Amino acid sequence: MKKCLSCAGAVSHACGVFGIFGADNAAEACYLALYALQHRGQQGAGIAVSHDQGINLVKDVGLLNDVFSNPSVFEALSDSSSGIGHVRCSVEDTPVRCEMQPFVVNHRTGQIAVSHNGRLSNLTELQNELEDAGAIFQTNIDAEAIAYIIARNMGLSGDISKAVEDTTKRLKGAFALTILTHTSVIGVRDPYGISPLCIGEMNNGAYCIASESCAFEAIGAKFLRDVEPGEIVVIDELGMHSRKVHGPGNGLCSFEYVYFARADSVIDGVNVHHARKNMGRALSKVMPVEADMVIGVPDSANPAALGYAAESGIEYGIGLCKNRYIGRAMTDSNKTIRSRNVGIKLNAMRASVAGKRIVLVDDSIVHGDTSAHIVGMLKRMGATQVHVRISSPPVVQSCPYGVDTHDRKHLISAKYDTESIKNYIHADSLAFLSVDELIESIDDSKTKSYCTGCFNGCYPERLG
Amino acid sequence: MKKCLSCAGAVSHACGVFGIFGADNAAEACYLALYALQHRGQQGAGIAVSHDQGINLVKDVGLLNDVFSNPSVFEALSDSSSGIGHVRCSVEDTPVRCEMQPFVVNHRTGQIAVSHNGRLSNLTELQNELEDAGAIFQTNIDAEAIAYIIARNMGLSGDISKAVEDTTKRLKGAFALTILTHTSVIGVRDPYGISPLCIGEMNNGAYCIASESCAFEAIGAKFLRDVEPGEIVVIDELGMHSRKVHGPGNGLCSFEYVYFARADSVIDGVNVHHARKNMGRALSKVMPVEADMVIGVPDSANPAALGYAAESGIEYGIGLCKNRYIGRAMTDSNKTIRSRNVGIKLNAMRASVAGKRIVLVDDSIVHGDTSAHIVGMLKRMGATQVHVRISSPPVVQSCPYGVDTHDRKHLISAKYDTESIKNYIHADSLAFLSVDELIESIDDSKTKSYCTGCFNGCYPERLG
Amino acid sequence: MKKCLSCAGAVSHACGVFGIFGADNAAEACYLALYALQHRGQQGAGIAVSHDQGINLVKDVGLLNDVFSNPSVFEALSDSSSGIGHVRCSVEDTPVRCEMQPFVVNHRTGQIAVSHNGRLSNLTELQNELEDAGAIFQTNIDAEAIAYIIARNMGLSGDISKAVEDTTKRLKGAFALTILTHTSVIGVRDPYGISPLCIGEMNNGAYCIASESCAFEAIGAKFLRDVEPGEIVVIDELGMHSRKVHGPGNGLCSFEYVYFARADSVIDGVNVHHARKNMGRALSKVMPVEADMVIGVPDSANPAALGYAAESGIEYGIGLCKNRYIGRAMTDSNKTIRSRNVGIKLNAMRASVAGKRIVLVDDSIVHGDTSAHIVGMLKRMGATQVHVRISSPPVVQSCPYGVDTHDRKHLISAKYDTESIKNYIHADSLAFLSVDELIESIDDSKTKSYCTGCFNGCYPERLG
Amino acid sequence: MKKCLSCAGAVSHACGVFGIFGADNAAEACYLALYALQHRGQQGAGIAVSHDQGINLVKDVGLLNDVFSNPSVFEALSDSSSGIGHVRCSVEDTPVRCEMQPFVVNHRTGQIAVSHNGRLSNLTELQNELEDAGAIFQTNIDAEAIAYIIARNMGLSGDISKAVEDTTKRLKGAFALTILTHTSVIGVRDPYGISPLCIGEMNNGAYCIASESCAFEAIGAKFLRDVEPGEIVVIDELGMHSRKVHGPGNGLCSFEYVYFARADSVIDGVNVHHARKNMGRALSKVMPVEADMVIGVPDSANPAALGYAAESGIEYGIGLCKNRYIGRAMTDSNKTIRSRNVGIKLNAMRASVAGKRIVLVDDSIVHGDTSAHIVGMLKRMGATQVHVRISSPPVVQSCPYGVDTHDRKHLISAKYDTESIKNYIHADSLAFLSVDELIESIDDSKTKSYCTGCFNGCYPERLG
Repeated sequence: MKKCLSCAGAVSHACGVFGIFGADNAAEACYLALYALQHRGQQGAGIAVSHDQGINLVKDVGLLNDVFSNPSVFEALSDSSSGIGHVRCSVEDTPVRCEMQPFVVNHRTGQIAVSHNGRLSNLTELQNELEDAGAIFQTNIDAEAIAYIIARNMGLSGDISKAVEDTTKRLKGAFALTILTHTSVIGVRDPYGISPLCIGEMNNGAYCIASESCAFEAIGAKFLRDVEPGEIVVIDELGMHSRKVHGPGNGLCSFEYVYFARADSVIDGVNVHHARKNMGRALSKVMPVEADMVIGVPDSANPAALGYAAESGIEYGIGLCKNRYIGRAMTDSNKTIRSRNVGIKLNAMRASVAGKRIVLVDDSIVHGDTSAHIVGMLKRMGATQVHVRISSPPVVQSCPYGVDTHDRKHLISAKYDTESIKNYIHADSLAFLSVDELIESIDDSKTKSYCTGCFNGCYPERLG
Repeated sequence: MKKCLSCAGAVSHACGVFGIFGADNAAEACYLALYALQHRGQQGAGIAVSHDQGINLVKDVGLLNDVFSNPSVFEALSDSSSGIGHVRCSVEDTPVRCEMQPFVVNHRTGQIAVSHNGRLSNLTELQNELEDAGAIFQTNIDAEAIAYIIARNMGLSGDISKAVEDTTKRLKGAFALTILTHTSVIGVRDPYGISPLCIGEMNNGAYCIASESCAFEAIGAKFLRDVEPGEIVVIDELGMHSRKVHGPGNGLCSFEYVYFARADSVIDGVNVHHARKNMGRALSKVMPVEADMVIGVPDSANPAALGYAAESGIEYGIGLCKNRYIGRAMTDSNKTIRSRNVGIKLNAMRASVAGKRIVLVDDSIVHGDTSAHIVGMLKRMGATQVHVRISSPPVVQSCPYGVDTHDRKHLISAKYDTESIKNYIHADSLAFLSVDELIESIDDSKTKSYCTGCFNGCYPERLG
Repeated sequence: MKKCLSCAGAVSHACGVFGIFGADNAAEACYLALYALQHRGQQGAGIAVSHDQGINLVKDVGLLNDVFSNPSVFEALSDSSSGIGHVRCSVEDTPVRCEMQPFVVNHRTGQIAVSHNGRLSNLTELQNELEDAGAIFQTNIDAEAIAYIIARNMGLSGDISKAVEDTTKRLKGAFALTILTHTSVIGVRDPYGISPLCIGEMNNGAYCIASESCAFEAIGAKFLRDVEPGEIVVIDELGMHSRKVHGPGNGLCSFEYVYFARADSVIDGVNVHHARKNMGRALSKVMPVEADMVIGVPDSANPAALGYAAESGIEYGIGLCKNRYIGRAMTDSNKTIRSRNVGIKLNAMRASVAGKRIVLVDDSIVHGDTSAHIVGMLKRMGATQVHVRISSPPVVQSCPYGVDTHDRKHLISAKYDTESIKNYIHADSLAFLSVDELIESIDDSKTKSYCTGCFNGCYPERLG
Repeated sequence: MKKCLSCAGAVSHACGVFGIFGADNAAEACYLALYALQHRGQQGAGIAVSHDQGINLVKDVGLLNDVFSNPSVFEALSDSSSGIGHVRCSVEDTPVRCEMQPFVVNHRTGQIAVSHNGRLSNLTELQNELEDAGAIFQTNIDAEAIAYIIARNMGLSGDISKAVEDTTKRLKGAFALTILTHTSVIGVRDPYGISPLCIGEMNNGAYCIASESCAFEAIGAKFLRDVEPGEIVVIDELGMHSRKVHGPGNGLCSFEYVYFARADSVIDGVNVHHARKNMGRALSKVMPVEADMVIGVPDSANPAALGYAAESGIEYGIGLCKNRYIGRAMTDSNKTIRSRNVGIKLNAMRASVAGKRIVLVDDSIVHGDTSAHIVGMLKRMGATQVHVRISSPPVVQSCPYGVDTHDRKHLISAKYDTESIKNYIHADSLAFLSVDELIESIDDSKTKSYCTGCFNGCYPERLG
């Protein structure tokens, strides 16, 4: 996935969504939960809560802590028991506040707020249709189109759960939604379950919905279950109700396990950390190599490196040191500082690697530049050999569901074979997992299927 | 060490200092170097550069990125080839801007800026003496007293290197200084070398001085050597000169290896990562235990956990997940959010630890509350046993050199024996390293001594 | 008019709009022009400029200077020759960023930005109709509905000037618009010309449109003429074209002359300062009184006071001192400070008024509290008598066009006769202008009519 | 006086000081009082209050409202009954936070905060002497030197009022001080009373001290009396005590009446508005001219214009319109906007002046450029003649007491005669008041003398 300046890690539209109904303080719960989901998006954040007078919204560009650093901003959201939140990840250069989420519409049937993770594959079609039908857009984001369709359907049926159900029938692609109305919080997952979504329960009986289960730990909630593909979960004064609308099959994005999700989350019954360790184990068999130490690119590839080490018997080590202090975005105006950005985020540890043959485990290669940079650092620090092992298959297709892999022309694996890439990054050897090996690492029960489109073009919806 | 809200890690006065002379852009170099030293202090940051008209200074409360987030602030420091910087760590509740560093004085002999890491054990005595001699203080920080003495000596001798030399003779305790004048940058390390300091060289011949060698990687400089205990290093138009004033012996703070320093730094010839791994190895022999997995408290205890695993043969695992998104300080006004702060910074991973006997390696226990919290989390997540191993001896003395261990009455090891602490934190067993084991882990050559005062009261200066 | 905390003056929806096509730097011109129009709205400000890639927008809550205080924000708008701007005045307690203007829609026919001054009397009707036709609203402001109708009509005709013309046929009430598309800037004034709008020309041939002529001085433009009621002025590469759509008559808000406009503006051929002076002259004949000094409530009532003095022969004086330093809004959290707000904005000058019989000229009385406060101050400072003279008739009706007079129940003149009000404010005598006297003061040619609805219920559109 | 960008008015070091002891909330009182004194300085502001633990200080660059816009900043100062404040005016391009006031020193005898208005004529001498005696300076401002001397004297005598008395004996030049210690607030005025200072009393018995009496109105205090030249006023638990140390005579800066002070203040028994009106009256006799209208440059010259009109019988009018919305400082990065700054701050009103012979009254001419700009505007707006009348004598000397008139070489009157200046500013005639006429306008009792150094070189201390 594209490595971005601000996190030196893969970037995608893997936003995080959350919703809660019945909380003592909905804004606090949203804040804590979004904090646990911050790894899914660092570009912007927002919280919307429901009041007697309607929906109050605070959203802005920046890390969650920055957006809510002013206590008075926080107070504007107090005294509410239901709310939804969003953290946004995007590769756009200049994020604009109005494109942050939750997205609120003021319909005569009431206000509706929407948080969305994923990407609609039929967005343009829906926008055109809505414009034909009289809608006027103010942004180009999925959430606006989704909110518009919900509001229109609400106008037709007057029943929010039916309105949402009718809406989901129109949406194609990946979507995990949390929706806030005056009387309910609703969670929706796309029919193939491409985007993850799960349900938690507080001690006081409040229910909550989140992109990943790690959000529940943060607020003291208990993980109940995943939202099923195609399921609509409505939480209101009467409790939690489920509408299973349609779900033709499973198709969770396999990249969630490879990179997006936090290691301590459990998604669709699979622990992310466990899956990553399995990927490493599998990787050790793909192209065995004699080496002195296995290291991972922190933090996401560490579990795979651990698995590789365990399986291969080669010692696991810490060879790269990551700078944790991100704070606000780097000062844009200073070119020198920006150009050294990767260098100051990650440093090779001479004492660990000098004189050693290193197996370097990473989760993916997109453009190849970051890998080349890391291999170079390790060699400058004295590594005698660097064998790169990638815990996923080569990325050869761009993603229609929001994983930001740009055009195929920027994907190094779409243009070059493994040998050429190995040379480009100056590795001594290079190996990837196959798609089958990846899927088996995630789930060897073979009862579910996963979206592996970016590796082999097989999308749940059979998109080109 | 005191665990603080903002980093869920140990807190101390382990500030970071840096200085450079001959840079293409001194402010940029300071920024990048301080970024690499940010782990030594997150409370405040500052950069002072030298201009024809004098010294320009920007400093403020906050992370480096926050202090310099406004490009115009950065521009105020442009066009200079020499400068010094500082990142500050403090446990004070309400940091005040004027106590941030570098600290600048306007003396008739010229402006002088000072950055200080450490703590003077004779500060009050010096302050009284200076007040008796006519000085008026505006803060209570060491750097102000140091700057005053330098300025006074400068007035007497007119020679900055002599002025600094005369100054160091008056200072007791721990100090690593970078000093900026109109014509030079000077590095000073206390006679026992309690605080670390080292020298780097840029490709263009510029010299730089930093608390840790990891700062050099960040700016593309090469590590030359450590500043020796008692040494004064002057960098000016003529190059780098050294004055070895007096250095009765070695006494580097052993806690630098245990916790403060970044794993990829090399201090006094010892790689920090390597030392920590050795501590883990040693620890595995102290009180062997049958277990299924060794985990470290991220990030500082991971190398020790790795060493423990390697030596014991017990599998190394990742059992705790750390939230990386610190951003600005949590919104103070919200009590609920503050109270959940530890919980959202660190999460136990059920899939890793459930059903397992865990060896939990941490670097230190100060109050015991954080350890109790972590042990509790692990057990809630299904760990059947949690054996706590600490890669340092019990902390029984407060530190006169700035490591913030508060009064002895807050140190759990000063009040209770290991068995009682084990019960307090609900561990199944608990063991520490002895002082000898710690020192051997750092350096088995036995040619140097280290300050181990907080463990056994043996301070280099033999302070009570 | 309601006296608000932030300006101690009357508050209304008398926003300011501006637009320019062909400027060297459109954002700069908008900034300078809006600065001159800041008296029309201090709650928020925004500028939208047209680029090759579309429309760039910066808007926020706050004074113009605050919104654009960060240079980088300004740079986001550079390199454009056409743009529109807006300053917003509102009495709402908690302004929200998304309700600031210009308001931008992303239609498939292109982006359109709209700035609006006035208020639609058929807004709810239009909103319902648009919702019926498929539109979804995100705010409750007029500009959103207007932009939606323009975009829809644009979709139908593909011709922006026709789209705007068709739009204006649907709008009732008061509106002065500036509209920005990729290829043009358009100015529109409602059929009765309730809201003011005029045209200027730059030396380089660029045309501009503004709420008041004072904006032209600020950018070095020359006043050309007023936009006529019902006129649409299109400025594009071909120059300036006018479409006179329909204009059944004149109905400029008479309160523009009484209070809203800046004294140096000329609106519909009438100089505001001159009109105010005439009001004062007329006022001196309504209820003559023996007095020692005439003073005005600064700044808006000073010209009327001057006219009163000239006509009556009573000396004109300065008896009230206004604090000019508004800066950002007062710190909300401090009740004491807020409660003293009026007192610190305006101070009576003892040396001027002590021992004197004072004629106090003000522009209007809405609730009566501010008048009571000022009369009280003058008496405490030694004025022996205070005769209050109001340069407009009693306000007895709320305004459907956006002048914020709240409910009739808050209008003191709607509930009480002049004698009762005199007693309430502790004045020694009190007199208002009649509607006829007001209109004659503005324009004795009797060729035009004006909206005097708030004084006598006679609205141009004959609304209730 | 130098006309500055930010206020289009004269700029000087006419800072404002305030202090209160026994208030219900000292910070609130300081805020309100400083707000009323904001005209004396817009560059920075600060408040220091006394607590059990010492002195809390908040100060920064910017308008008072900006410095205290964050409620949490304000809260840091709560719960105190005594405090002092400062608003700072300076012409320096880049104000630095640490040069803002109050200035606090941490002496072993306790903390001391100092606010200073004026300028010491022996600052360098004092600084040298203090440096010789061991002091080290951190800034170059008078308040630091003053605070140092007080602290030193405090160390000697242990009695704050004696320490202040001893201090004032060392100071030459202009100084009005408010001083805060843990147990008292002290006001000090220089021996000639060059800087103004006065005493007020609250209803609750609290005493306060301010640069101008207008501050008392703002907090509901009653003006008691001026502090006498050379007087030290100590307010503590025992009430208010006065030490009249030495006061060789009167020498209040006559420019306070001409420009600095707010019109509603009373200084040394003279009402400022009254004095200005007298200046106008006197001016009308200096060089009578036939004209149609007298106008003042708002706001400071309006009273003089009024006096001129009353005496001459020529009609008083409003011919210049001032933009009131200053907000924060103009965005520095934009040259076009800065260059048009004067134009957008002040606008000539065509309807008032067209076809008329205008008498333009202003308070002073320093460089001549602003006058030339205003005369030009008036003529472009149709004024047939513009006769400039200045309500003070030509400024021919720079000021040693802090009035910022720069070098003599920048003073147009120091280089050219009245005829040449008249031509430079394109006026039809030009006249100044003589020094005698100015003094008589202020006070015809002839019992007091005033500093008129900038007009004739006669300084109270007979400085060169």
